[in-house]
Amino acid sequence: MSHDRRQILCAIGAIGAATLLESTSKFVIGAEPGFVSEEGVFELGDFALENGAVLIDAKIAYKTHGRLNADKSNVILYPTQIGAQHGDIEWPIGPRKALDPGRYFIIVLDQLGNGLSSSPSNTPRPFDHGRFPTINIRDDVAAQYRLVTQRFGIHRIALVIGYSMGAQQTYQWAVSHREMVQRIAPICGTARTTPHNAVFLQSLRAALTADAAWAGGDYRDQPALGMRALARVYAGWGLSQQFYKQELWRQMGFDSLESFVTGFWEKRYGRRDANNLLSMIRTWELNDLGATPGMHASLDRALGSISAKATIIASATDLYFTVEDMRAEAAQVHRATFRVIPSLWGHMAGAGLNPADSKFIETEVRALLAR
Amino acid sequence: MSHDRRQILCAIGAIGAATLLESTSKFVIGAEPGFVSEEGVFELGDFALENGAVLIDAKIAYKTHGRLNADKSNVILYPTQIGAQHGDIEWPIGPRKALDPGRYFIIVLDQLGNGLSSSPSNTPRPFDHGRFPTINIRDDVAAQYRLVTQRFGIHRIALVIGYSMGAQQTYQWAVSHREMVQRIAPICGTARTTPHNAVFLQSLRAALTADAAWAGGDYRDQPALGMRALARVYAGWGLSQQFYKQELWRQMGFDSLESFVTGFWEKRYGRRDANNLLSMIRTWELNDLGATPGMHASLDRALGSISAKATIIASATDLYFTVEDMRAEAAQVHRATFRVIPSLWGHMAGAGLNPADSKFIETEVRALLAR
Repeated sequence: MSHDRRQILCAIGAIGAATLLESTSKFVIGAEPGFVSEEGVFELGDFALENGAVLIDAKIAYKTHGRLNADKSNVILYPTQIGAQHGDIEWPIGPRKALDPGRYFIIVLDQLGNGLSSSPSNTPRPFDHGRFPTINIRDDVAAQYRLVTQRFGIHRIALVIGYSMGAQQTYQWAVSHREMVQRIAPICGTARTTPHNAVFLQSLRAALTADAAWAGGDYRDQPALGMRALARVYAGWGLSQQFYKQELWRQMGFDSLESFVTGFWEKRYGRRDANNLLSMIRTWELNDLGATPGMHASLDRALGSISAKATIIASATDLYFTVEDMRAEAAQVHRATFRVIPSLWGHMAGAGLNPADSKFIETEVRALLAR
Repeated sequence: MSHDRRQILCAIGAIGAATLLESTSKFVIGAEPGFVSEEGVFELGDFALENGAVLIDAKIAYKTHGRLNADKSNVILYPTQIGAQHGDIEWPIGPRKALDPGRYFIIVLDQLGNGLSSSPSNTPRPFDHGRFPTINIRDDVAAQYRLVTQRFGIHRIALVIGYSMGAQQTYQWAVSHREMVQRIAPICGTARTTPHNAVFLQSLRAALTADAAWAGGDYRDQPALGMRALARVYAGWGLSQQFYKQELWRQMGFDSLESFVTGFWEKRYGRRDANNLLSMIRTWELNDLGATPGMHASLDRALGSISAKATIIASATDLYFTVEDMRAEAAQVHRATFRVIPSLWGHMAGAGLNPADSKFIETEVRALLAR
């Protein structure tokens, strides 16, 4: 653990001012026990990837909320999705929220490539920048498994919950470690990337890399034009036709369509590293639960192997993780409940942006945790 | 007419070899009267655009099929859509097809910006390349009106039919020249561009212009990377999720997803001029039938002013001209029949690529012509 570098964020009170401390101590106890949280980085050492490459001095970043109970039975895993880091997805975490740190020990897991865990932007030669090896969703789960078992000694997980690429990791946990996982909640994400979804992802890559400033990944400054193009493509896919028609971006405080696209989408991806985004896009494109060893390349077999109780949640208007695709996968999971958020927010229904959608999700997750 | 340069294409027999001739004669009579066709360019002279600019020596290209009858009552207008030229959209034209040149005089009208009519690629300074002025759909219709009335002396139109941007021109004909137009068939297109559709169009522009080779429009060679990025974005929007899932591109003779995207989409747009595409994208983005003079900026008023019999055809899976949007517009047109193609081919259901969809459209158009 000597390599374990941590930043401890101790937030006292639900809306109290957060104080950022640097420390090597494991836990900081806040004024109320429910508010304990910890940021950390776990050193994976030499980490063999599914594609055969070995990442030297690999690491996985995370943030915990709440405290692990005595029998280590109150664990919730919550992996990040593309473009997000652990601090970006805390909307369902808090007292009286679905993920209550007063009751659960919640570990938000930074996906490989997200800029905090091992990524093109922080990995030394020979795997720096565009030379970062291809990451599979199973690599994410393998890194997370190391963290969970070696750092925390956890062997039972009450819930894995994830949105979008987080849902991909959630499905993978339920198959790769079915003996550990009691419940899963994949939200707006599929167990295998569909061909249409792949075309969308390829268009993101094509838009970003059309910018000569990308330079095959060896840019000095971020390829801003390409990143903006990627953001503009994403803006069309990430929400629904009716979201735009009804100008629901006004609910987010924007006063024009253009200010929404620049102020939300360009900002959302413009703050990230281009190679990191490309790495995660590739991981997403390759996602296939059926390729898990032992599943004989069968998605149905992999889904059928899941023993966890599952609540699988789609958005009615998601344009790339469609209701149709998610329902077909859910039908293969034995103990699954399938729910559709009646939302006009498209894929973003699962992102915690629209209170009605978030309430729907929280209600379902509470019910799952009570099952 | 002295400036009228023409190329005459005389195709004898439905599948006979076509012979390209250069000529100044007006008509070439084929072996069978139904097969007469003529390509032409009509000189518009100094052509004032809605945005205030004047195009010097403007021109509109066209191709006719069949012969104008004595009382000039058998006219069908068929404007092109983005990326198409008059030779690309002949699928519904032919003996025993919906647009039968043995019976009708069909004028296929090249949209401004399509590379044959006045376009960034063929206009001299000061309006060359990226300096080509913004074209409104009403400018297209004004140019077409000049051609139809001045070149052919036509004042009654049995049908205007158009797909996608062609549908936009179709709606505009029915409002700007309602005294002339007896029937309209807008297919997979709206009378006003929706906000979501605009975001999609902006993403096409962003993808194309992320390529530094575009050089603000003053490229020497086409910006190939940007054009490929545009094509890849289009590939996601132009068809449906299920089209890709079911690999319906196999019906078009492709043997892999990648060969379809490159062989169909990249080829479809890669053969075009970047500035021309950008010009048409801007025209599409601005399209608003409600902005027709006299309509008080009301789309409903404009749609309600249409006196033509109408058959308005949507595709069940069109991702940008959605059934919902098209149905709402159709409901405002007094004599409209609204039909939905039960297709998985998304927007491409109207492009003449899938025989079942084409048959659906032809059946509806025949019924409309019989009304």
